[in-house]
Amino acid sequence: MPAAVDHESRRQQIVRLATDLIDELGLEAVTMRQIAAAAGFSTTIVTHYFAAKRDLLLHIYRAAARRTEIRIDAVLERDAGDLQGTIEAILPLDAVRLRDWKVYFTFWDSALRDPAFSAEQREQLDSAGAILQRVIATRLQSGRARRGLDAAPAVRRLLVIIQGLAVQAAFDPGRWTAQAQRDFVADELAALGC
Amino acid sequence: MPAAVDHESRRQQIVRLATDLIDELGLEAVTMRQIAAAAGFSTTIVTHYFAAKRDLLLHIYRAAARRTEIRIDAVLERDAGDLQGTIEAILPLDAVRLRDWKVYFTFWDSALRDPAFSAEQREQLDSAGAILQRVIATRLQSGRARRGLDAAPAVRRLLVIIQGLAVQAAFDPGRWTAQAQRDFVADELAALGC
Repeated sequence: MPAAVDHESRRQQIVRLATDLIDELGLEAVTMRQIAAAAGFSTTIVTHYFAAKRDLLLHIYRAAARRTEIRIDAVLERDAGDLQGTIEAILPLDAVRLRDWKVYFTFWDSALRDPAFSAEQREQLDSAGAILQRVIATRLQSGRARRGLDAAPAVRRLLVIIQGLAVQAAFDPGRWTAQAQRDFVADELAALGC
Repeated sequence: MPAAVDHESRRQQIVRLATDLIDELGLEAVTMRQIAAAAGFSTTIVTHYFAAKRDLLLHIYRAAARRTEIRIDAVLERDAGDLQGTIEAILPLDAVRLRDWKVYFTFWDSALRDPAFSAEQREQLDSAGAILQRVIATRLQSGRARRGLDAAPAVRRLLVIIQGLAVQAAFDPGRWTAQAQRDFVADELAALGC
């Protein structure tokens, strides 16, 4: 009796290998054939899981977003009101987080011509916003945020800051060291009173 | 006697047509052959001017950056201290400016794997920073900015805000209308005291 194929593990393996290849060569240069070769599968098997690079990119993007969520969860498990830590879990402070931002940049480029990708990007932003809003609410309850602070505009500001900072840090890591990013966020949180 | 070929005008024509094609189809999908066909040239002529898509993308990026500079110059010619106007000239407030940001996103994706592109991106950022610094200096001289304002950190903040806002606006134009972007910048400038 042949061993049952673990489809989910195969999908994850393909996503992982494709992430590596795209990280190295860029989405444009990578072919489904190369991805299949790296995984030791036929192109037919790979296209059974992902009909085209587009589907694969969507999964790569979601995997990067999921890694960010896991980092945030780890921060909030220690302290549900750690706003600085939450933002640091997202920012490209190290090679691992920068890699996820590289995935986002690639996805953004495609999302500009793809309404479904654009909607996915909006959902991820909303989800990040909801997390920040919850953390600020926790801080308000425990008196760690300025009384009377309006959370909604603060969240909008923080999302703008996070994305702007990530773009700068990705291209100018010499200026935007991890410490410089941390300090910028700390100043911002102090100014916002949260 | 054959008419002299105007190489500069040909180059510009190719860049223009390639910008349209990439805007519509994405960098990945567009071929040098398609660009040549759109221009009515042979692929050989196009590759005489631009050896590969990479060279073309660099020129497309520079053309977008140049358009932004021209918009900024027009603002500063009217009022050398118009900081809000300078930032609005950069932000994706309308279809024309959004198109330039789409070029930037495509370029960023390539820049992550290309040190020369990454250096170019840093240069453009430095150049934008120098312009903002000059406008703030003008405002300080004429008493339109808060006395004692430290321009350097204000410029760093504004660059972060501009890039963060542009990314959000590109994917969520419903939330980030032109007015919402303008208001965000006005609030920021008021808070910074410049």
